[in-house]
Amino acid sequence: MTDTLFTGITELVTPAPGPQRGAAMRDLTVIDRAALLVRDGLIAWVGPDAEAPPATEKHDLGGVAVVPGLVDPHTHAVWAGDRLDDFEARAVGVPYETMLAAGGGIRSSIAATAAATVEELVALARPRLTALQLSGATSTEVKSGYGLDFDAELRMLRTIQSLGREFALTSTLLIHVPPTEGRDAYVRGVCLTLIPEAAARGLATAVDVFCEAEAFSVEETRQIFEAAQAHGLKIKLHADQFRAIGGTELACRMGALSVDHLEASGGPQIAALAASGTVATILPGVTLHLGLPAAPGRALIDAGAVVAVGTDLNPGSSPLFSTALALALAVRLNGLTPAEALTAATVNAAAALGLTDRGSLSVGQRADFLALRGPDWRELPYALGTNPVRDVFVGGVKR
Amino acid sequence: MTDTLFTGITELVTPAPGPQRGAAMRDLTVIDRAALLVRDGLIAWVGPDAEAPPATEKHDLGGVAVVPGLVDPHTHAVWAGDRLDDFEARAVGVPYETMLAAGGGIRSSIAATAAATVEELVALARPRLTALQLSGATSTEVKSGYGLDFDAELRMLRTIQSLGREFALTSTLLIHVPPTEGRDAYVRGVCLTLIPEAAARGLATAVDVFCEAEAFSVEETRQIFEAAQAHGLKIKLHADQFRAIGGTELACRMGALSVDHLEASGGPQIAALAASGTVATILPGVTLHLGLPAAPGRALIDAGAVVAVGTDLNPGSSPLFSTALALALAVRLNGLTPAEALTAATVNAAAALGLTDRGSLSVGQRADFLALRGPDWRELPYALGTNPVRDVFVGGVKR
Ligand SMILES: [Zn+2]
Ligand SMILES: [Zn+2]
Repeated sequence: MTDTLFTGITELVTPAPGPQRGAAMRDLTVIDRAALLVRDGLIAWVGPDAEAPPATEKHDLGGVAVVPGLVDPHTHAVWAGDRLDDFEARAVGVPYETMLAAGGGIRSSIAATAAATVEELVALARPRLTALQLSGATSTEVKSGYGLDFDAELRMLRTIQSLGREFALTSTLLIHVPPTEGRDAYVRGVCLTLIPEAAARGLATAVDVFCEAEAFSVEETRQIFEAAQAHGLKIKLHADQFRAIGGTELACRMGALSVDHLEASGGPQIAALAASGTVATILPGVTLHLGLPAAPGRALIDAGAVVAVGTDLNPGSSPLFSTALALALAVRLNGLTPAEALTAATVNAAAALGLTDRGSLSVGQRADFLALRGPDWRELPYALGTNPVRDVFVGGVKR
Repeated sequence: MTDTLFTGITELVTPAPGPQRGAAMRDLTVIDRAALLVRDGLIAWVGPDAEAPPATEKHDLGGVAVVPGLVDPHTHAVWAGDRLDDFEARAVGVPYETMLAAGGGIRSSIAATAAATVEELVALARPRLTALQLSGATSTEVKSGYGLDFDAELRMLRTIQSLGREFALTSTLLIHVPPTEGRDAYVRGVCLTLIPEAAARGLATAVDVFCEAEAFSVEETRQIFEAAQAHGLKIKLHADQFRAIGGTELACRMGALSVDHLEASGGPQIAALAASGTVATILPGVTLHLGLPAAPGRALIDAGAVVAVGTDLNPGSSPLFSTALALALAVRLNGLTPAEALTAATVNAAAALGLTDRGSLSVGQRADFLALRGPDWRELPYALGTNPVRDVFVGGVKR
């Protein structure tokens, strides 16, 4: 049996395992001059270097800070085509509706993605997932949702399954855009065909819905959630991005893993999240890219919610290719402290995926950790525009 | 005589040489399937690949977009110590005055920098300048200003001079923080001792002043500017960051190279800049990091000003280690179009340093250019959190 002792750690900084809420999000454990023992991909021991147990192998990290690997709980990393025309048009003030009418906007991503093979989608997504991993993401959620028609949705899920051989991924079936006509039949098909198929083939662990006035209603969301749960899948929700129409409350009542976006959440939605086990996932990349309001991260934590942060990597509203930068933006745009942001991007982000086996540098957890470039872990939330992560370890193995 | 023909360029995109104002900032030249001939570090020919002249050497860039090297016209890249305690304190709501009273804030950077040797400062600044260069900066301005006492200021300038052997730097003497007592004598000393010394030793090409209610007055700024001009140095100004007290108007009247910050500029300041040759330099990193108002980039361009963008890299108000990200942020935070942002970060940033020999891919200009990672140049302003720059060429030589 091989075990590896990692030394040369100026400070090892970690939240406790499992989801943390409210003030506990600020409660990091800091071990100076630490060591970390990895056995069979798990953390076998962690403590001061001077008290380290013997090990068959040693790995000196050279005097840098170590934090848990980040978990990116919300990405749309699989797409074809690009949205650079939209980006340019938006900068000169063209309304989104005009772009849509001209064949741009999300429908251009849907058309290009539907026309691509699994192999093409894998090749397009690989460098994006590599960028997230270089920025510190050791686990990443990827959603379908640019398929619209069911064959294309299943092709997206097979793409994620295929990329799962190279990266630690969690796959979510996203019911994203209602068809322009026949939406009742579409929702029925989602419940009776798409969800059963995805569940039977093991292509997704959760179903997500875009619940918004312009997308799916609360009642449609409820039907889809019931079908998901009936087939043993977890549920997640995109809600309160533009208006709070009741999706957050529904998701909390039905035991969703997370509700994501929350830019338009007010008192009732914050209270519902704080009173539930549902994770509140904030996505500051959208705030930066589109100049829209920021989610009330500070208020959510103060109310006692479990807050997570993710990139929302997607071509239209968040071309943010760094999980570390999402963490850093949560401090600037959502009022999180550096400690809260680390918790949001690790154990809480894992909880948003239903995972409690990672995100903390504690005995028994997966040995997913980051060696930073310097001795102070706070460079991770602080530095902008440079990658503060030097080495990424997944299950104790350097990527 | 060696000349090198660069091929494999999907599109070569450039503003015209020299400062561009108003609508001309959007007027980029785009050459599809281009080639670029470099001779003796200068651009000797640029045009369609099919019409390229013969060359002794060829360099195939492999099918990517090429843009001019970026110019970062405003950094404080030389400092010792760190401001991570301030960063954490600020996130939990500690006022800046309280940090200052506890020995933090800018005075902690001054104390640490004054205590460092030139060799120590060079070693600390080198990785920062390397990060800026990797992000596309082929010319970078670096200011003194953490010295306060004259010996420490001159030590900072010698640090910049030393780093100038490794990077293409422009050195600016910054009169940054008034002493708590004896400020009349300090300003006299700046004019009669520090500026003459810096000029005589060739340690700076310009003098910059922090003109603000809490820093130097307009009258003190005028005295310092007159001394600078009397010794053959150019003038620049930090102004309108918190309040518009008249510094911008003074700088425009006296022919300053640039006025930087401008977050609090209103109609009269915008009009003064638009009517002058003085460059208006915006610094979106400060807006992102501190959550302060953004400079009116859109209004400045619409009024006809020459607008440039820079990182303002410094430990307290802008830990932004990417000139490319500064460009990308100007689109999100200051209302620039992608084309305007490229002009702001190239020829206009060069003009803010008094340089007209770089920033445009035109015959006779320095062969400073970037090979991006993909075929569409718009990835440069679009992508967040990943470096869209693959190769950096300075004077035709890959760094
Ligand atoms: Zn999303
Ligand atoms: Zn500055």
